[in-house]
Amino acid sequence: MIVVADNLRITRPFIGRAVEQLDPAPVRELAMRCRDAGAEAIDINSGPLSRKPAERMTFLVETVQAAVDLPLVLDTTNPDAMAAGLTACRRRPVINGLSLEKDKLARILPLATRYDCDLIAYLLRPDGHVPPDAAGRMESAIALFDKCQQAGITPDRLIFDPVVAPLAWQDGNRQNMAVLDVIRSLPDLLGFPVHTIAGLSNLTTGAPGSDLRRRYQSAFLPMLAAAGTTMILMNALDPSLVTAVGDCRRICADTVFTWQ
Amino acid sequence: MIVVADNLRITRPFIGRAVEQLDPAPVRELAMRCRDAGAEAIDINSGPLSRKPAERMTFLVETVQAAVDLPLVLDTTNPDAMAAGLTACRRRPVINGLSLEKDKLARILPLATRYDCDLIAYLLRPDGHVPPDAAGRMESAIALFDKCQQAGITPDRLIFDPVVAPLAWQDGNRQNMAVLDVIRSLPDLLGFPVHTIAGLSNLTTGAPGSDLRRRYQSAFLPMLAAAGTTMILMNALDPSLVTAVGDCRRICADTVFTWQ
Repeated sequence: MIVVADNLRITRPFIGRAVEQLDPAPVRELAMRCRDAGAEAIDINSGPLSRKPAERMTFLVETVQAAVDLPLVLDTTNPDAMAAGLTACRRRPVINGLSLEKDKLARILPLATRYDCDLIAYLLRPDGHVPPDAAGRMESAIALFDKCQQAGITPDRLIFDPVVAPLAWQDGNRQNMAVLDVIRSLPDLLGFPVHTIAGLSNLTTGAPGSDLRRRYQSAFLPMLAAAGTTMILMNALDPSLVTAVGDCRRICADTVFTWQ
Repeated sequence: MIVVADNLRITRPFIGRAVEQLDPAPVRELAMRCRDAGAEAIDINSGPLSRKPAERMTFLVETVQAAVDLPLVLDTTNPDAMAAGLTACRRRPVINGLSLEKDKLARILPLATRYDCDLIAYLLRPDGHVPPDAAGRMESAIALFDKCQQAGITPDRLIFDPVVAPLAWQDGNRQNMAVLDVIRSLPDLLGFPVHTIAGLSNLTTGAPGSDLRRRYQSAFLPMLAAAGTTMILMNALDPSLVTAVGDCRRICADTVFTWQ
């Protein structure tokens, strides 16, 4: 399970300001803190970037890759920002992300082909909504797999995101049991060692307090690990969570265990 | 997931002394502490009780059930101690446990029929060894299920224990992945809602320090919960573990989630 930091988000005021002013220091510092804390990849969540998308995403990518030598995950719904970010990346990036929504298929999918990069595909319905159960997610996975094959993207480039639901949703816990089921079942369904990613922070959206947030994330993380999740998008600056990732890896590994 | 306290063990010196002297106070106190901490059943691990088995098991059962109104799990390899304990129990007890070993089938299984109680069955090989993989455990489950059916024990009385392995074993982590697999698969394999129990403390046998013990138990517990484990035999006096059981229950429950 690879730790992808979700800490670099433009919705955080100090990052938003840094992007607006093209001030690299706060971005650089945050990226370095994430790497030092154990992040193995950095998600650059720039939001839709309605103003100056190319310039701002380029700034973010260049700043982060000058600070840390880690794979970057470009997380924007704006195809112009995405294209600029992909152009700026020195090492193979990950696009975050594709879905069956028409505009994503039309404008994000071709970028994955053109830049030969990895691609996160959300198991959402074509209307962009979260499917109500595991079966709906499986259907989306099959449809996305077909679309990617047609676009010449090889299976090893694909990373499915079954969409962790906030526990506070009316059917949040049921949805998340479906998420685990899907992660476990995809390799059998599709017939290859499917890569998956799960957004752990989503789980506790709306949690009243950081203790509850940490508790529930700490409980769900091992469930994701045991299901075989490949990448975990999470708060890399929570040391107890990063430690837990290492513990889960050692428990689930197919190698001899050693106390650490 | 029901919390069964594994704290009452005759191998603990203060319990060993209390049993020898038939002094109820330490036993009573420990049972009450476990109940207050969240235990929902108490495992009375008396060991083989080679001396005065009937008298000592009767003392343990009577002392515990006078102190707490919880189901008791009688955990001894000595059939005479088991029979005495079963006779002393006021509410339906759980026998811990049966296996395919010849003497267990000959002397423990009939007690389950005679006392109409619940029965933990270890997924061990007939020679008493832990099977190397999931398939070996499944074979044992089928064989044990057959034996119990022949003895007139209904499936709802059966609780399978797939035997959590110490991580420190050479293949400990692989074994425990098999344990999760078995817990998940048994209901499909046997065709009824199979009850299971897992001994969490076993996981960290030999751990160099309580921090490591807690960390690895905290990571494996949610994996067991997500696999559908019915009962968890564990240190009920570790508040963080008991809290984690509640969190796992709320994550895995098929009901509306509320922050707690």
